[in-house]
Amino acid sequence: MKTCCESLRLDPGVRSDARRRLLSVKGHVEGVLRMLEDETVYCVDVLKQLKAVEGALGKVGQLVLRSHLQEHVVTAHGRGDESRIVEELMEILKYR
Amino acid sequence: MKTCCESLRLDPGVRSDARRRLLSVKGHVEGVLRMLEDETVYCVDVLKQLKAVEGALGKVGQLVLRSHLQEHVVTAHGRGDESRIVEELMEILKYR
Amino acid sequence: MKTCCESLRLDPGVRSDARRRLLSVKGHVEGVLRMLEDETVYCVDVLKQLKAVEGALGKVGQLVLRSHLQEHVVTAHGRGDESRIVEELMEILKYR
Amino acid sequence: MKTCCESLRLDPGVRSDARRRLLSVKGHVEGVLRMLEDETVYCVDVLKQLKAVEGALGKVGQLVLRSHLQEHVVTAHGRGDESRIVEELMEILKYR
Repeated sequence: MKTCCESLRLDPGVRSDARRRLLSVKGHVEGVLRMLEDETVYCVDVLKQLKAVEGALGKVGQLVLRSHLQEHVVTAHGRGDESRIVEELMEILKYR
Repeated sequence: MKTCCESLRLDPGVRSDARRRLLSVKGHVEGVLRMLEDETVYCVDVLKQLKAVEGALGKVGQLVLRSHLQEHVVTAHGRGDESRIVEELMEILKYR
Repeated sequence: MKTCCESLRLDPGVRSDARRRLLSVKGHVEGVLRMLEDETVYCVDVLKQLKAVEGALGKVGQLVLRSHLQEHVVTAHGRGDESRIVEELMEILKYR
Repeated sequence: MKTCCESLRLDPGVRSDARRRLLSVKGHVEGVLRMLEDETVYCVDVLKQLKAVEGALGKVGQLVLRSHLQEHVVTAHGRGDESRIVEELMEILKYR
């Protein structure tokens, strides 16, 4: 896992998976932008697409969160930075 | 507001406001993609940016929702399509 | 539906359904209170029960929201109070 | 903190704080039940109270979650149950 003196970083495999998914989110946003060029577009169809984008973003977040828990949170007591780790996590989870 | 026989469409002013905001969301997603190229990036910094993007997307959704309520939902009884309008809305709000 | 001069009120059938469900929510809360008397209770079991209670509360909210949409929102243009109705709704949905 | 062989349990101070808050949630639910006996009650007033109850429940959840993170999650690697701990947490956070 982590060696003692390396700073905390996002796992490389998760980082590349997150990039891949986020590229697809970007494509989805571009699709909604094209929808919005159509002057006959219906509000609810836009809202559905926005929800779908939010859902896809949420999946990226879950991926990164799971990796953070596995790599950095469960090991925090051993490193001694548990207080910072817990506060950061509570801050992020507040808005979920 | 609507003439009787026009189909329901997103208000043009709201449509262009939504496009403007969504372009900024796309820029924000590109920023997170650049973050993810950095192999020292910290999970929590990524999670914070993802939350910010979700927040910005949520604002676009609120804009479109408010317009839909004003233009199409409060007038549904007059048009006689209230049952479809209510079901669509409940479906969208379920995932909020 | 509404006669012109009656003030807006929750539909009686929905009101009694909401009461019935809310009584069950209250029973569920009492169950969690009993869980919390047990000094060996595990955090995650409490969190799961709290989620379940939130889910049940959310169902009551959906019931009341659907009725509000059907009875008061889709008819707002006819009554002429659409501006108040939309603002109230946006305020409530903001926190969903 | 934990002795090595004690099973994971909710911290006693947090447990009693959670009980106190949950008693107040129960009182709030009883208040909404009384509201629902009034046949002139307005949908939106009920929805606002339901949101307030959800908010109060959410605070209890945050309290228990923070304690779980502090007492059990940051120490999971030391105990060797990190895989279970992470899965449980992801499951709970999914519904937030």
